[in-house]
Amino acid sequence: MNFRLHVLVDPAQVALDQIGTFCEALATGGATIVQLRGKRASGRELVTFGAVLRRETRRTGLGLIVNDRVDIALAIEADGVHVGQDDIPVPLVRRLAPHLVVGLSVGNHQELVVARAHRPDYIGMGPVYPTASKADAGPALGIEGFKTLRAEAAEVAPVVAIGGIGVDNVMAVWQAGADGIAVISAVMNADNKAEACRRLVEHYSSRETLSK
Amino acid sequence: MNFRLHVLVDPAQVALDQIGTFCEALATGGATIVQLRGKRASGRELVTFGAVLRRETRRTGLGLIVNDRVDIALAIEADGVHVGQDDIPVPLVRRLAPHLVVGLSVGNHQELVVARAHRPDYIGMGPVYPTASKADAGPALGIEGFKTLRAEAAEVAPVVAIGGIGVDNVMAVWQAGADGIAVISAVMNADNKAEACRRLVEHYSSRETLSK
Repeated sequence: MNFRLHVLVDPAQVALDQIGTFCEALATGGATIVQLRGKRASGRELVTFGAVLRRETRRTGLGLIVNDRVDIALAIEADGVHVGQDDIPVPLVRRLAPHLVVGLSVGNHQELVVARAHRPDYIGMGPVYPTASKADAGPALGIEGFKTLRAEAAEVAPVVAIGGIGVDNVMAVWQAGADGIAVISAVMNADNKAEACRRLVEHYSSRETLSK
Repeated sequence: MNFRLHVLVDPAQVALDQIGTFCEALATGGATIVQLRGKRASGRELVTFGAVLRRETRRTGLGLIVNDRVDIALAIEADGVHVGQDDIPVPLVRRLAPHLVVGLSVGNHQELVVARAHRPDYIGMGPVYPTASKADAGPALGIEGFKTLRAEAAEVAPVVAIGGIGVDNVMAVWQAGADGIAVISAVMNADNKAEACRRLVEHYSSRETLSK
């Protein structure tokens, strides 16, 4: 699985008949994964939206990860599930869904120690920058804090940076060693979503060089 | 599974170290099932609370059903899952958890038509009386409305009445043909939970006679 660019989407943000166009734009721009996250959505909405999203992500070659709800991930045959510190613990997720990619949110050293034991397939690390999209997020790491924590995570799992990342500050995130980034507003608020994705990932392939 | 008396419990209502005593009281009073329902609880809380609740319900001979979250039901090895009209549809729940008892909320004729096709193991029918415990519940059926809808459900599944049921009005519910009842405040707000359960079910065994 290529973790380069995750775009988080809430069922409230895209009409059912626009999901196909939405996925095409993301794939064209270089996104690799869509994460379905609907904190206020009902199970029924997540299943309805998720079924179309699954079909369209397959068609456009995107991976699909579901936030928090392992049952929804199984129901719509997603590729993975992303859990936070307040969600079902990773070892239990593995038992329920052994075939799914499992991501875990990590925001500090202590959480990374637990992550090391629980061995997720990737780590969502952040918030790197302050963000309004997640009310319960911890304090922002800042780019130096991210760099330090990311170095600690080197042998644990690939690291996907999250939190306030946009076109204007993404270069520093790639330079800090992120294996991928996850965004909401940087893509969802853009009129041209393909172009927003393209600008976010344009320095992805040179990040090895950049970080030296 | 005996559907006589379901007691719904939220993790916020019982301290972890009181769950054993809580289950003992319920079992002593004649409850048969505990339903774990934590609309605002995190996955982590539900798993932590649910694991203890599973151990104590087993010890005291109570069944355990989880509201809405199929993943939590699987994680804590519950006996069943109860879904509402906004949750994952019953056929999908069956696919995810073929061994679980599945209950479905039904509040009107239209929902019963769908229930007939989806074949849940039991129907939660209500609200019979007005209730403050479920903000999104439909209008109360009233005892006559319940009786009519319950008769329609005769060949679909056993019917568990829910919504505003207490010691003072439970007799009418048994007389109206309920196979079981589900309560929150009638037990959770009682100082003596065993006694509250006992009074709710004392006319259960004579309900056949009563309904004639």
